[in-house]
Amino acid sequence: MSRIDGRTPQQLRPVTIERGWSKHAEGSVLVSFGDTKVLCNASVTEGVPRWRKGSGEGWVTAEYAMLPRATNTRGDRESVKGRIGGRTHEISRLIGRSLRAVIDYKALGENTVVLDCDVLQADGGTRTAAITGAYVALADAIGWAQGRKLIKANRKPLTGTVSAVSVGIVDGTPLLDLRYEEDVRADTDMNVVCTGDGRFVEVQGTAEAEPFARDELNTLLDLAAGGCTELAELQRKALETVLER
Amino acid sequence: MSRIDGRTPQQLRPVTIERGWSKHAEGSVLVSFGDTKVLCNASVTEGVPRWRKGSGEGWVTAEYAMLPRATNTRGDRESVKGRIGGRTHEISRLIGRSLRAVIDYKALGENTVVLDCDVLQADGGTRTAAITGAYVALADAIGWAQGRKLIKANRKPLTGTVSAVSVGIVDGTPLLDLRYEEDVRADTDMNVVCTGDGRFVEVQGTAEAEPFARDELNTLLDLAAGGCTELAELQRKALETVLER
Amino acid sequence: MSRIDGRTPQQLRPVTIERGWSKHAEGSVLVSFGDTKVLCNASVTEGVPRWRKGSGEGWVTAEYAMLPRATNTRGDRESVKGRIGGRTHEISRLIGRSLRAVIDYKALGENTVVLDCDVLQADGGTRTAAITGAYVALADAIGWAQGRKLIKANRKPLTGTVSAVSVGIVDGTPLLDLRYEEDVRADTDMNVVCTGDGRFVEVQGTAEAEPFARDELNTLLDLAAGGCTELAELQRKALETVLER
Amino acid sequence: MSRIDGRTPQQLRPVTIERGWSKHAEGSVLVSFGDTKVLCNASVTEGVPRWRKGSGEGWVTAEYAMLPRATNTRGDRESVKGRIGGRTHEISRLIGRSLRAVIDYKALGENTVVLDCDVLQADGGTRTAAITGAYVALADAIGWAQGRKLIKANRKPLTGTVSAVSVGIVDGTPLLDLRYEEDVRADTDMNVVCTGDGRFVEVQGTAEAEPFARDELNTLLDLAAGGCTELAELQRKALETVLER
Amino acid sequence: MSRIDGRTPQQLRPVTIERGWSKHAEGSVLVSFGDTKVLCNASVTEGVPRWRKGSGEGWVTAEYAMLPRATNTRGDRESVKGRIGGRTHEISRLIGRSLRAVIDYKALGENTVVLDCDVLQADGGTRTAAITGAYVALADAIGWAQGRKLIKANRKPLTGTVSAVSVGIVDGTPLLDLRYEEDVRADTDMNVVCTGDGRFVEVQGTAEAEPFARDELNTLLDLAAGGCTELAELQRKALETVLER
Amino acid sequence: MSRIDGRTPQQLRPVTIERGWSKHAEGSVLVSFGDTKVLCNASVTEGVPRWRKGSGEGWVTAEYAMLPRATNTRGDRESVKGRIGGRTHEISRLIGRSLRAVIDYKALGENTVVLDCDVLQADGGTRTAAITGAYVALADAIGWAQGRKLIKANRKPLTGTVSAVSVGIVDGTPLLDLRYEEDVRADTDMNVVCTGDGRFVEVQGTAEAEPFARDELNTLLDLAAGGCTELAELQRKALETVLER
Repeated sequence: MSRIDGRTPQQLRPVTIERGWSKHAEGSVLVSFGDTKVLCNASVTEGVPRWRKGSGEGWVTAEYAMLPRATNTRGDRESVKGRIGGRTHEISRLIGRSLRAVIDYKALGENTVVLDCDVLQADGGTRTAAITGAYVALADAIGWAQGRKLIKANRKPLTGTVSAVSVGIVDGTPLLDLRYEEDVRADTDMNVVCTGDGRFVEVQGTAEAEPFARDELNTLLDLAAGGCTELAELQRKALETVLER
Repeated sequence: MSRIDGRTPQQLRPVTIERGWSKHAEGSVLVSFGDTKVLCNASVTEGVPRWRKGSGEGWVTAEYAMLPRATNTRGDRESVKGRIGGRTHEISRLIGRSLRAVIDYKALGENTVVLDCDVLQADGGTRTAAITGAYVALADAIGWAQGRKLIKANRKPLTGTVSAVSVGIVDGTPLLDLRYEEDVRADTDMNVVCTGDGRFVEVQGTAEAEPFARDELNTLLDLAAGGCTELAELQRKALETVLER
Repeated sequence: MSRIDGRTPQQLRPVTIERGWSKHAEGSVLVSFGDTKVLCNASVTEGVPRWRKGSGEGWVTAEYAMLPRATNTRGDRESVKGRIGGRTHEISRLIGRSLRAVIDYKALGENTVVLDCDVLQADGGTRTAAITGAYVALADAIGWAQGRKLIKANRKPLTGTVSAVSVGIVDGTPLLDLRYEEDVRADTDMNVVCTGDGRFVEVQGTAEAEPFARDELNTLLDLAAGGCTELAELQRKALETVLER
Repeated sequence: MSRIDGRTPQQLRPVTIERGWSKHAEGSVLVSFGDTKVLCNASVTEGVPRWRKGSGEGWVTAEYAMLPRATNTRGDRESVKGRIGGRTHEISRLIGRSLRAVIDYKALGENTVVLDCDVLQADGGTRTAAITGAYVALADAIGWAQGRKLIKANRKPLTGTVSAVSVGIVDGTPLLDLRYEEDVRADTDMNVVCTGDGRFVEVQGTAEAEPFARDELNTLLDLAAGGCTELAELQRKALETVLER
Repeated sequence: MSRIDGRTPQQLRPVTIERGWSKHAEGSVLVSFGDTKVLCNASVTEGVPRWRKGSGEGWVTAEYAMLPRATNTRGDRESVKGRIGGRTHEISRLIGRSLRAVIDYKALGENTVVLDCDVLQADGGTRTAAITGAYVALADAIGWAQGRKLIKANRKPLTGTVSAVSVGIVDGTPLLDLRYEEDVRADTDMNVVCTGDGRFVEVQGTAEAEPFARDELNTLLDLAAGGCTELAELQRKALETVLER
Repeated sequence: MSRIDGRTPQQLRPVTIERGWSKHAEGSVLVSFGDTKVLCNASVTEGVPRWRKGSGEGWVTAEYAMLPRATNTRGDRESVKGRIGGRTHEISRLIGRSLRAVIDYKALGENTVVLDCDVLQADGGTRTAAITGAYVALADAIGWAQGRKLIKANRKPLTGTVSAVSVGIVDGTPLLDLRYEEDVRADTDMNVVCTGDGRFVEVQGTAEAEPFARDELNTLLDLAAGGCTELAELQRKALETVLER
């Protein structure tokens, strides 16, 4: 099978990670997985939510949203509807959990980092692009906080790196990093979040049409693990240079 | 390691499935997994949501909620807060997807079944108990609709059975069907939804503390698949008898 | 006139009061008036709402709700609609006022008891069943709080008992404790809340069709007072035994 | 006991009923019970809510609200809070039910009348003033609709008149038509809605402090019935003159 | 061109300013511009919003709303809709800014004045009538606060007076103080807020149909400035007498 | 006075208008006024809102929003707060009115264009940048609709061009196109919307501190008119090239 855009089944789309996109945020990354573009802004504030005060530990959370016309047909704004939809809630929670998996709360101290992941243009895999970009924005925000002595320089609030990718079975073939057209045709759809050392943080597999067998699951996990290894390398390279502020 | 309630790691809690609990609903099941009790009511209505009209296909959806004092400390009512939380949204969507995995929409015809899963008492695993009980309520509702000729008698809207169970790694030991005390101590927490023929509908694994390695994931999947096989058998038995109405 | 279920006009439905229904709540009662089943959970917390702080006085409040399929046709969830309806508000307030009528706030001390009355199955008279059951749950919660020394043992926060019943005129005949089918056919519908010593806490009479004359009102009040006396006796009996925790 | 404003226990405050207050509404009454002033506007629209279409029957409903500074201390606007409170809901429903008690839906035809009762200044008894004034606005609106041939001239949509008054026991003395200062000191508070022929539409009695005995209830009902008779006469007089439009 | 009500183009409607309308509010003005009637209540509270605490400075804010039947056809209540519309927001903000333009926050001290402007009857120019009336209510509220020593007697929290008027171009003729029928036919519509000394606080001009040229803008500003001078004189006269409380 | 960024008082910031930014929207423009960046997406749908059906006329509307971290400190999401703020409402309405001033509804036919203006980075003048960019997106959307024959090729739905700029008085000097630092220091702040032929669509001037005199107003209007002329030329140039789709 040849893919719409000529990729091999185990090939990622072109991924770009642009740091310092916004001048205001402590960490700001515009991440693209092909035509999927997500702006990930990290905001650092001193202090933590009430339930965590006095613990000496920090907090990391995330909010995901799509611009109304990020997609092919316009969606109503959740602010206008007056409520956040289930999908938005679900993805915001996923991003937050994924990032917290590589955070040492003690080392972070009583500081909070909020990751805003706003999808400017969507073409499948927005949540996995968001996680991958948000990690880099988070790293920059922590660097900023250490520069400002909000976090002690000898502390390491990040215990590892984290990235994510989608996989799925389309017409019987397991594919890495689905575009929207592939995603809607997939029988099974899985989002996998891995640490840079190859362990799993989240595995979310859903049978869109047919339930999937154990060996299909195994193939998808292999494919995702490979993709995450590549993404971890791209994150490492993106963070090599010093960000001018 | 011995578990709080003396179970072996691969042992389910006592599971009961009480059909015909409410006199109003077309399918009504009170399911218990130990001290977790969920009332699953299935409501059948003729017709489908607007976006599906004229398709000749039916629809199945679910809403999950907890009574305010289902848990150890009282939670505020979502109706009073005026909005549904992310967790509630997430679980409602999971239950709906899980049930739709075994539905033949054409055979269902333009009918809608809504599954209300209300947790009366919680002790871990409420979403997996809800899925397991809701399947039985759904089966009863479909039987009712066939009795009323809403669905033709020779149609089979159910293409299989579906059940769910939680698994997790507590103090290094993989355990089946976590109670609340185990759940809070788990490093990794996974909810697995399987069809009666042993395939996967949903796999949702989350590293609560430490990311998990591939072999741990494999062990958990084995454990869950075994649990679901047992639950499928309990569902089959529960449905053996004719429900008096 | 013979009633649908063979009762005499002045006869209550079979009433059961099951204490200790939930393992989490400080007081937990499943009350049934025939097919009407309401779960009444009492939650005790130290402290009082802000406007009462420092007064040395406690607070008792209630929230009433129906499961979506407690009734013959499914009702939308108020949490999903994002607002509480007028009927729910009205009944929650009625239950709270009724219970506060037998509370000595000083003796309660700065503690709050919230009564959650969730209708699991409805067949008329849900608000009166809720009040009757909630009183017993409240009594158990206060007993619990005295056991924990939150309330001094020599204090008597309860100044009496309280129960409630509906009455109505159906086809010209005054009836006690209406079932749903009777309720919808009633010309006049009245809910009466009485203390155990036969005084009135609330009298709410509504002409559903024809306005009612003074002598009809008197007959209904007699009928209700008799019903409340019976209910007070059932509450007393239910509370005779020591609740194992 | 002498009352704050020198009234006898069974004396109403000065009541004024000013018709045609607003130039826009089909019926518009500014009613005062002493310092309590309520603007009651009746809006007629052809057609009925969806659930009533095709029935040939009309509908009457009401909405009650208070201006933020109708009271001694400013209350937050319910529009700003984003939700309607329980008290507002309760009173709106009471006004609607009270008016519908004297409506012949068939004679009204498929027309809807909405009564907006906005409290401009409050000094106790706002709901009873609202009912009393709304009846007059409703009568004017029906007259208007008959003038426009929306309702046939030979039909009588009003089957009677309706008015309301509050009564209560203050320091042991039963009083008619409580002012705010009396209301807050009342042990028992009752709102009674009567038809012009002396029958009851609503009786809502609440023990604010002490439960009340049957003979106290009887005394209060006598007092209220007398007040309603006077109010019915005032309504009749107010409607005697032809309203210039 | 002769206007509907016989006014000349540069003539205001009859304006009345009735102080002390409500007995509860610290300042209470019923202002009419012809058939437009707005009740402006000023509420004084000690203290300021959290973001201003400790500044030694006060705050003035406003809330505007219309009764549902203030207009020719009934509008839904914003409290029932659960959200405030854009127009309401916009006007509330405009009134607040206009009044703050003549406030010396230091002289006001840490006190808050809320101006509630509720339109009882609308016939064009409700926002400008509201500003004009609210200024008088504000002046009375400040007088009250000085009488109570909340504000020192030698302080002058008001640095000037403020009033507002609408102007517009109808059929090519610039008109002052538009009635509703004129407003809907206007090509250009402008609301102008001036201080008593003839300077501008707000200028809001909108081309409803045709964009407007600079000289038209100049003519409208002249017209508005003249109207505001007259209104300032009416405000001065209204405030001449001592308000009995 | 020299400005922070070295501009003369009557100089615009560097303005860029990037067409075709998003692949999904029918018109998509990323507009920058210096560091202010707004993504303006135009969505075309056949049909019009219900109140306009059958009129043969189209509709144009706009929604404005800011990303949470578009500003120096993070703002809460309006979707999370569950309501849209007054400022957002106000600006959305302004953008819509401004664009409709150059629309011939008849020529547009029964089509709707929604302009989503999302501020990605803010540095003052977001609403004026939004209007300026949205006009170009609207022009592209109309071109697209004519290419698809939704609008007849010989129709001219655009009757002119529209752009907007802010002006203000800072330390006594009138300045064009304020940056954020200038905006917060301005005594008077004005937003002016002009057509390409130099007429006014909206004039919104606000005295932030001191009321402003007529001659100051005149100077600001001159300055704004000059800025809009330049912007109109930039819009014209941006639209010169054919947009590849």
